[in-house]
Amino acid sequence: MENPKVTMLTGATPSLLNNSMPDLALRHSQNPILSPSQVQPSRPDMKVECLLNPGVFYFDGLVWLVVRVAERPVQEEGKLSFPVLKNDSVEILSFELADPLLDTTDPREPRYEGETFLSTLSHLRLFRSGDGVHFEDAGLPILHGKGELESYGIEDCRVATMNDGTYLLTYTATSSKGYGVGLRKTSNWKDFEEMGMILPPANKDCAIFESKVNDKYYCFHRPSGVGLGGNFIWLASSPDLQHWGNHICLAETRKEMWDSNRIGAGAAPIMTKEGWLAIYHGADFENRYCLGALLLDKQNPANVIARSEKPLMQPLEDYEQKGFFGNVVFTNGHLRQDDEITLYYGASDTVIGSAKFSITEILKTL
Amino acid sequence: MENPKVTMLTGATPSLLNNSMPDLALRHSQNPILSPSQVQPSRPDMKVECLLNPGVFYFDGLVWLVVRVAERPVQEEGKLSFPVLKNDSVEILSFELADPLLDTTDPREPRYEGETFLSTLSHLRLFRSGDGVHFEDAGLPILHGKGELESYGIEDCRVATMNDGTYLLTYTATSSKGYGVGLRKTSNWKDFEEMGMILPPANKDCAIFESKVNDKYYCFHRPSGVGLGGNFIWLASSPDLQHWGNHICLAETRKEMWDSNRIGAGAAPIMTKEGWLAIYHGADFENRYCLGALLLDKQNPANVIARSEKPLMQPLEDYEQKGFFGNVVFTNGHLRQDDEITLYYGASDTVIGSAKFSITEILKTL
Repeated sequence: MENPKVTMLTGATPSLLNNSMPDLALRHSQNPILSPSQVQPSRPDMKVECLLNPGVFYFDGLVWLVVRVAERPVQEEGKLSFPVLKNDSVEILSFELADPLLDTTDPREPRYEGETFLSTLSHLRLFRSGDGVHFEDAGLPILHGKGELESYGIEDCRVATMNDGTYLLTYTATSSKGYGVGLRKTSNWKDFEEMGMILPPANKDCAIFESKVNDKYYCFHRPSGVGLGGNFIWLASSPDLQHWGNHICLAETRKEMWDSNRIGAGAAPIMTKEGWLAIYHGADFENRYCLGALLLDKQNPANVIARSEKPLMQPLEDYEQKGFFGNVVFTNGHLRQDDEITLYYGASDTVIGSAKFSITEILKTL
Repeated sequence: MENPKVTMLTGATPSLLNNSMPDLALRHSQNPILSPSQVQPSRPDMKVECLLNPGVFYFDGLVWLVVRVAERPVQEEGKLSFPVLKNDSVEILSFELADPLLDTTDPREPRYEGETFLSTLSHLRLFRSGDGVHFEDAGLPILHGKGELESYGIEDCRVATMNDGTYLLTYTATSSKGYGVGLRKTSNWKDFEEMGMILPPANKDCAIFESKVNDKYYCFHRPSGVGLGGNFIWLASSPDLQHWGNHICLAETRKEMWDSNRIGAGAAPIMTKEGWLAIYHGADFENRYCLGALLLDKQNPANVIARSEKPLMQPLEDYEQKGFFGNVVFTNGHLRQDDEITLYYGASDTVIGSAKFSITEILKTL
C-alpha cells in the first residue's frame, strides 16, 4: 500500500512526554487523551460508561482509533436495566432489583433465570487525529454487533493493516453463546465485509500478523480453558485469513510473576532486526494488568526467543489505577515509526492513554 | 472409494438383539461387546481401567473400532501415581498421598502444586471384527499422543471415511495446555499424517462430515465457555480440512430436559432423504448421558430442521448404569447400511456396547 502521509509523530515532542515513571513507557503528558465525557452516547437513553482498548491505524493521512465504547442504559431507581441486540437493534431489558430471579453478584455480568448477560453493550467508534493526540469523532457510522453471535456487542478491536490496502478487524464477539473472535475487512472504513467468527468460544485477544510468514498468515489468540489449561497466548496459521488451524500454545502464565493469572496478545507484532516483537498484557491474581514483550523467531514465530521478566509498563498513574476496573493498562493498538512505537491503551477500563517506547530499549530488556 | 465387502450386518440377527428397553435402541444381547479385561495393557506396569467411545469404520473387508483405552499405573499403597507423556514416552509421576501439595479432590484430575493432571492416560487401539460383534486386537501399532499438546493422551476418536479412500481421525488432544481437537489422516492405518490441532481449547467432540456441502467441508465441534456460553454444539467449515472458520452455534442445551447441562456431537452425520441426521449426546445436571438426534438441512447444515424431544437411547442396562462413571451412553461411531444404523457406544465410561437403530424410526420421532 502507499506510505501513510502522517505527520503526527513529530507532533509529540519529548517535552510533552512524561518519563518520570519507573517503567519503559513515555506517557503523554496530556493523558488521558480520550475520556467518556468526550463521547456522545449512541442513543439518548444510554450513557457512555467506559472507553476501552482501541485498535489503531493510519488512514487518509491521519491517525485513527477504533475505540470500544461501552454503554449502559440510564438507570431507574429500584431497577436494573441492561441492553442487548435483537435483530441487530438495541433492546433494553429492565428488571426490578427485588426480583428473586435476578442475580447481580457480579455487577458486570448480571444473571436472570440462570442466563448470563453483560451490564454494558459495547460498539466500536472511529476517531481521527492529525497529531495522534487530539482525536475527534470521525462521524462515520458506528460499528455494531451483527447477528446472534454478536448480540451482546463487540469489543477490543485489533486492526491489521495489510500490504494490499485492506484493514482486518479482529474483535471479541459476545453473546449468550459465548465470546469468540469475529473478523471484518474493509479498505475504506465505510464498507465492511463480514468474514464470520474465525475462532469459537471461549476466545479473544486475536491479532493477525500484518504480513505472511513462509506463505502463511499467522495470528495470536487467547483461548480459555475449562479444567485443564489456562489463559495462555496461542498461535495459529491460515491460508486465507478466514480459516485457521495448526494451533499451538506460544506462551503460558508464569507462577508468582506479574503475568501469573492471564496473558493475551496486544496488536500485530512488529518486525525488528531481532525478530517479531509482540507486546502483550499479563495480569496477576489481583487482576493488575501490565504490559510485557515476547520476541519471536522471524522465520518461525512459534519459536519464542525471549520474554520480558519485568513489565514494560505498569498501571502507575492515577488514571491507570482508578476507574471502572482499576489497575489496568491494556493495549491492542500501536503505530511504529523507525525505532519508535506509539502505543494506545485502555487505562482502568475507562479512558484511553498514549505512550511511546523505543524498540531498541525494549530489545535491550529481552 | 470401493464398496466395503462387509458381511457383518447380516450377522446380528434380530433374535440376538434386545428390544425390551423403552427406547429406540436395539441393544446387542452380547453387550458389552468389549471390556477392559479383554485388552492387554500397553506396559506391564499399567492397568487398563476403562474402554471408551470408539470410532468405527469399514476397512479391508472388516469392521474396525478405534477404541480409547484409559490406563493407570499399578498403584502402590500410600501413593498416587499417574502417567504423562514426556518426549512422547510414558513417564509415571508418583506422589505420597500425605504430600500436602497433592490435591485429590477430583480423583479424575489430581492436582500437584496447582497444576492439573489426569489420573489416567488414554491411547487409541485398533480392534477388528468379521461380524461387528466379536472384536480382536488388530495387532497394529497403538496410536499414542504426540508432542506437547497431547502429553496427557488422546481420547474419543471420530473416524470420517472420505470418498477418496482416506480416513480422518479427529480426537481430543489433552495436555497441561488444555484440551483441543487433533487431526490425523491415514489410508492404510499404518501411516498417519499429523495435521495438527484444528480447534484450540477448550474443545472436543469434533466430527467431520464425510462429504462436502456446497464445496466446503463441515464439522461439528463442542467449545466450552467460561462465563458466557455453555457446552453447545457448533458447526464450522473448511476449504482443506486443516483450517476451520465460519463457526456458528448449531444447538444449545435445553432447560429442564435430558440435555440441559451439556451436549456434543457423535460421529459424522448420516445423509437421509429428509436431511443430515446427526446423533448427539446430552447430559443433565446429574450427569446422566443419553443420545438424541438433530436433523439438518441437506444444503445448509446450519439450519436445524428438527431435534429429539426425548432421548433415542438412555442408560438403562446394568452395564450402562454402573462403572467408572455411571449412567452414561456415549457414542462417536456408527455404521450405516440402508435404513439401519449400527451404533457403537461407551457405557458408563467402562465398556463398549453395540445397538441398532432404524433411520425411519428415528425420523418418525423428529
